[in-house]
Amino acid sequence: MPIVAVIGDGQLARMMHTEAIELGLAPRVLAGGEDASAAQVFGDVRLGDYRDLADLEAIAHDASAVTFDHEHVPSEHLQKLIDAGVAVEPRPSALIYAQDKLEQRTRLAALSAPVPQFAPIASGEDARRFWEDVEGEVCLKATRGGYDGHGVWFPASPDDFATLVEDLVAKGVPLYAEAKVPFIRELSAMVARNRSGQVEAWPVVESRQANGVCRVAISPAPGLSPELEEYCRNLAVRIAEEVDVTGVLAVELFETADGVQVNELAMRPHNTGHWTQDGCVTSQFEQHLRAVLDWPLGSTAPTAPVTVMVNTLGGDADPDMPMEQRVVEVMRKYPEAKVHLYGKDYRPGRKMGHVNVAADTTERALEVAEDAAHFIVNAEWK
Amino acid sequence: MPIVAVIGDGQLARMMHTEAIELGLAPRVLAGGEDASAAQVFGDVRLGDYRDLADLEAIAHDASAVTFDHEHVPSEHLQKLIDAGVAVEPRPSALIYAQDKLEQRTRLAALSAPVPQFAPIASGEDARRFWEDVEGEVCLKATRGGYDGHGVWFPASPDDFATLVEDLVAKGVPLYAEAKVPFIRELSAMVARNRSGQVEAWPVVESRQANGVCRVAISPAPGLSPELEEYCRNLAVRIAEEVDVTGVLAVELFETADGVQVNELAMRPHNTGHWTQDGCVTSQFEQHLRAVLDWPLGSTAPTAPVTVMVNTLGGDADPDMPMEQRVVEVMRKYPEAKVHLYGKDYRPGRKMGHVNVAADTTERALEVAEDAAHFIVNAEWK
Repeated sequence: MPIVAVIGDGQLARMMHTEAIELGLAPRVLAGGEDASAAQVFGDVRLGDYRDLADLEAIAHDASAVTFDHEHVPSEHLQKLIDAGVAVEPRPSALIYAQDKLEQRTRLAALSAPVPQFAPIASGEDARRFWEDVEGEVCLKATRGGYDGHGVWFPASPDDFATLVEDLVAKGVPLYAEAKVPFIRELSAMVARNRSGQVEAWPVVESRQANGVCRVAISPAPGLSPELEEYCRNLAVRIAEEVDVTGVLAVELFETADGVQVNELAMRPHNTGHWTQDGCVTSQFEQHLRAVLDWPLGSTAPTAPVTVMVNTLGGDADPDMPMEQRVVEVMRKYPEAKVHLYGKDYRPGRKMGHVNVAADTTERALEVAEDAAHFIVNAEWK
Repeated sequence: MPIVAVIGDGQLARMMHTEAIELGLAPRVLAGGEDASAAQVFGDVRLGDYRDLADLEAIAHDASAVTFDHEHVPSEHLQKLIDAGVAVEPRPSALIYAQDKLEQRTRLAALSAPVPQFAPIASGEDARRFWEDVEGEVCLKATRGGYDGHGVWFPASPDDFATLVEDLVAKGVPLYAEAKVPFIRELSAMVARNRSGQVEAWPVVESRQANGVCRVAISPAPGLSPELEEYCRNLAVRIAEEVDVTGVLAVELFETADGVQVNELAMRPHNTGHWTQDGCVTSQFEQHLRAVLDWPLGSTAPTAPVTVMVNTLGGDADPDMPMEQRVVEVMRKYPEAKVHLYGKDYRPGRKMGHVNVAADTTERALEVAEDAAHFIVNAEWK
């Protein structure tokens, strides 16, 4: 059975690993350290640096596919692997749209996908002009390297904006700006696509953030009209096809009064898809592996009317109660709660695990998942 | 989070491992060799012999619980671990009823649980007497060490029976005999119990064997009357409580014209419970881990009307088509099929994996699971 090499040692690699085992694959991980979330659990751990070509070549050796749990591997290294015959999935030509937000905006606009007004920003002058264009509704972003709210700024005045831009440009940060979207809520449309072109979509979910970090996903998105659901699914499928994605693609969306706008793209299993582990015939982690191996994709049918995921994000302080006891209390109160932990030490705001709850109603699934996650974080009930 | 040490390196340990990772546990395995099914995938693999006390002590060090994927660890070693303060779950005082079939029969009879007529057999004379008692409907069993149809004989005449017994006794095989049960089909009632006494039962399943090896499990058992289902569940719960089982208990049953008779007990995840991975809120592997840690048990609610498991047992010959291609063809034809492989090389009759299929009807689930498993074994459709 084939070797799948995963570059990146976080929880996404860790959760791919459990599915890889069940499929009988030979999973291998390139990890930065022995204590990393994925390195703790893989049998075949290679320590190294994802920015080092030799380390990448070593992990790719004999692998049927090389994939990622993050978007930060240098494209030129990936291209060298491809030139040497390695199946890198997704390819750097697709990955660029998850790595570089300005490239993504430009490409999506060219596809007539709904994106906010945007422009590259290289000077204070650019800043002042864009401010006027969007009447001050400005969101400034680093084109690369941002995640979970990092690399995003909301300037309060044209002067602030210009100063901020001059400051960041001086530091060498490539920037673009876009119009702030007056959104009602955030949605996520996820699909997987294999090299042969098969695409399968999961139900569109509602996602809720805390400080720019995904905290809750509700599947299906409550009250989403069938027309808009279909639109979002089709949009994600079309993006996957147009940019030649392989593996899982998450299209993060803003729902507005008159439709949706694309926020971000991610080309790997995504936080808004964790619910699939306990609410779907095929989880995003299994699907990603199947997709990058160019295997046929699995059914994305849900197994419950509603499934809610709530992340357990490190709180302001770590309670004295040991984590084991917190998990035990949650399991005692909620036999239906599915607790997933990533083997990570406490840090404020850190994604340390999540809880999935399937139920007959959104209300019940949310109530249980929120209370369970709250207890794991705070050692007290909501 | 706690260390759980698993003694035994087969597919049951392997599938415990995937659940242990998701729970954030630190799993460790005592394996006989690096290539063993579980040793391929655990991060923390200790090579050693489960019959060697020093190896057992080493794996038990700092573990919150020590458990098993087979019943063959010497009781005296386990008792030494317990005396040293190790949480061995299940304890040897319970495990004896899964290790020694005569002890099991004796204990179950004392509990008034339904068992066939039985007697210890130590001589040809014992054999002839038992033959007469049960009018030739004889099943001879080794009290220990039998599994998957090994250690079971059906003598054809009193002379054959007596000769067979004399032969086996001369080889030092401890024996007992029981009346052959005229069964309609086989059932399996599975529960899990933790040290605190919480017990949870799964739906009773129908199991089908091939050459004494479990091949199919259907959940729920088709057409089983609610009264008999309740009886079987209650019986399994009572056995778990009376013999102080911790972890998963499988009570294999014969369904007869007028009820059920107990066939075997197993105190670990069991082949007839593999369907829970893809058809139940809490799989038997997660439940076993929770039970041996004395954590609260999870919901055993099914997530589909019917789930069928079919083992992929090595056929008479291994087809030329590579295993990967067989899996791909199955996934292409049946997006709903869940393929689980154990990393084992081909051997005729060997349990190499299984396929779970959830569906709305027994007919559909059986048809898909049988066809999928058939293809994985034979590289052709049924």
